[in-house]
Amino acid sequence: MSIETEINTIAIIGGTGKEGKGLAYRWVKAGYKVIIGSRNMEKAQIAVAELAEKLTDQEQKLLSGDENGAAVRQSQLAVLTVPYQFHKDILSSLKNDLAGKYLIDVTVPLVPPKVSTVQVPEEGSAALQAQMLLGEETTVISAFQNISFGLLLSDEKIECDVLVCGKNVEAREIGQKMVRATGLTAWDAGPLENSIVAEGFTSVLIRINKQAGTKNAGIQITNVPRD
Amino acid sequence: MSIETEINTIAIIGGTGKEGKGLAYRWVKAGYKVIIGSRNMEKAQIAVAELAEKLTDQEQKLLSGDENGAAVRQSQLAVLTVPYQFHKDILSSLKNDLAGKYLIDVTVPLVPPKVSTVQVPEEGSAALQAQMLLGEETTVISAFQNISFGLLLSDEKIECDVLVCGKNVEAREIGQKMVRATGLTAWDAGPLENSIVAEGFTSVLIRINKQAGTKNAGIQITNVPRD
Repeated sequence: MSIETEINTIAIIGGTGKEGKGLAYRWVKAGYKVIIGSRNMEKAQIAVAELAEKLTDQEQKLLSGDENGAAVRQSQLAVLTVPYQFHKDILSSLKNDLAGKYLIDVTVPLVPPKVSTVQVPEEGSAALQAQMLLGEETTVISAFQNISFGLLLSDEKIECDVLVCGKNVEAREIGQKMVRATGLTAWDAGPLENSIVAEGFTSVLIRINKQAGTKNAGIQITNVPRD
Repeated sequence: MSIETEINTIAIIGGTGKEGKGLAYRWVKAGYKVIIGSRNMEKAQIAVAELAEKLTDQEQKLLSGDENGAAVRQSQLAVLTVPYQFHKDILSSLKNDLAGKYLIDVTVPLVPPKVSTVQVPEEGSAALQAQMLLGEETTVISAFQNISFGLLLSDEKIECDVLVCGKNVEAREIGQKMVRATGLTAWDAGPLENSIVAEGFTSVLIRINKQAGTKNAGIQITNVPRD
């Protein structure tokens, strides 16, 4: 199956939490069709209704809800925003639906209760785990691990860069384009092995937030020309 | 052997490169005695002479050179700045000298030629590798992996934060104190497992420098109160 490079519809798997709603909000604002997916159709519809309150009538037409598999089948690009404990199972159950698609994996391999200690998955990173599980028919991209998703639901500029990993330059370019559509600065951070840096940094940020009494600690690349 | 918490003398193992000289410069400026160590006494003396040109007469009295083992024995805290390929060997050869001391490990597990791909050591991080090799008698701290060391030889403010890892709060506090003495902002980044984030980030920065045509890309924590 060939990869479709023109992306107009995005499925957000497990998109009823604040991560999914935050990304959906930003992408709808950027003109993409977004389908919020859930295992439960009713939950998806509730999330759509909540988000609709922040959208114009025109924008609301771009937003819908569906069961995860159906959402993925209607999209060119899917986004995975579920807790790590469900990572393998949900990917396995959607493997056929994801064939021929891009998948942006936002997963951080946190293992409660030690969420501020970095956990390196056996495969090297959660994103590599996804790529190995899905096989070559799906192009896995990793991004957005260090964003406080609550911030995405505001229209303010977010002071946090996004590291984008993927198996090849084309995958990373698609990923960067999708990040820039949310208003954030994206960096090509290399192959999926490198995703452990962004995934692991979330544990460090959790720790820094706790120490500093903050909620939205992020990262920024310095000493480089910025957008 | 008990750990001495009052640090006045720092040994820089393999300190004749720009990493070692940059750190030596900053610490001498901050009033610490610094011994540049090398396998070769003559090389240590050459590095001292080079650095002395940038120091006042008074500051020069704080700087000396010695063979690595002798340098470590005269210090309370040693710093390791050698390429990863020598990491295990040099630590093994200095194990007895390092007992009862702090060791700041600056090592990044780069494996040429793929220096922009993250390599996770079997132990989880280069810093954990050092701690396992040296045993409990040495307190390993990791820091400074993301700094362009050439910048340390200037007196300019450096826009790059330092993540400090160590096995306990006391180790991380010592590490942060030593980082702040160089004029940089330090963050408690947690246990030595977390060091892979800072170690791996160097590969990402190498890649970003290549793409952006820059040399000193760094990282900064955002959305937190700063020094």
